[in-house]
Amino acid sequence: MAEDSNMEEIPEAQCLELLASHFVGRVAVVAEGRPLILPVNYILEGRTVAFRTGTGTKLDAAPMGPVAFEIDEVDPMYHSGWSVVVQGVGRELTGALDAWSTTVTARHLEPWAAGAKEHWVAIAEPVFSGRRITR
Amino acid sequence: MAEDSNMEEIPEAQCLELLASHFVGRVAVVAEGRPLILPVNYILEGRTVAFRTGTGTKLDAAPMGPVAFEIDEVDPMYHSGWSVVVQGVGRELTGALDAWSTTVTARHLEPWAAGAKEHWVAIAEPVFSGRRITR
Repeated sequence: MAEDSNMEEIPEAQCLELLASHFVGRVAVVAEGRPLILPVNYILEGRTVAFRTGTGTKLDAAPMGPVAFEIDEVDPMYHSGWSVVVQGVGRELTGALDAWSTTVTARHLEPWAAGAKEHWVAIAEPVFSGRRITR
Repeated sequence: MAEDSNMEEIPEAQCLELLASHFVGRVAVVAEGRPLILPVNYILEGRTVAFRTGTGTKLDAAPMGPVAFEIDEVDPMYHSGWSVVVQGVGRELTGALDAWSTTVTARHLEPWAAGAKEHWVAIAEPVFSGRRITR
């Protein structure tokens, strides 16, 4: 569209490269009809974004529910930047013994926030979208 | 809590200072039961976070619905960082003539993404929360 001529879509392969090269994102979930959003440390395993949460946190709503995840980078000097969004379904991996779950949870992921983060949550059925704004 | 001893809450006054000194955040809304999350340029006017959106965008769900907004800053070197979250209700300000709306929409806010961004959305009934993680 001419009116959005400084915005371009980022293809999925490049979305995955960006996800693989970063480590902090924001997770949004719906709890009692309201959106919640929290920064998390994450890993990418194949096409799967996974993060760890503690019991009783706001992210308790995430497992088995719809989830959105976002990373971005902005350049204030040039008013430019990019963002990648993953939409999917939160899946609790903790204790799961299937090959996929054990591959993900074998990855090293130490959240910066101290405390027991016993739950692994992966984003299943991921749909990737990305956009880049250039001046 | 002992298990979260490296995390501290950020008081509301300091949340507002952080919001006033940044300009890009992420908005989360609920559309058809699923969370959406998008980066936006924003302003803070008093205790009101406001941003502009285009017609037909994913943020069409925001006006009059529950909204979450987040800013953060991370320091990879020291595994530390902070985040501020605003939860409230999206309110369309476009065309409104009350004093509060005109004060907000009189502010200069030029989104980096080109194109018509004719809708101003403010977050009403804001609840601020922030947390800081130190090593």
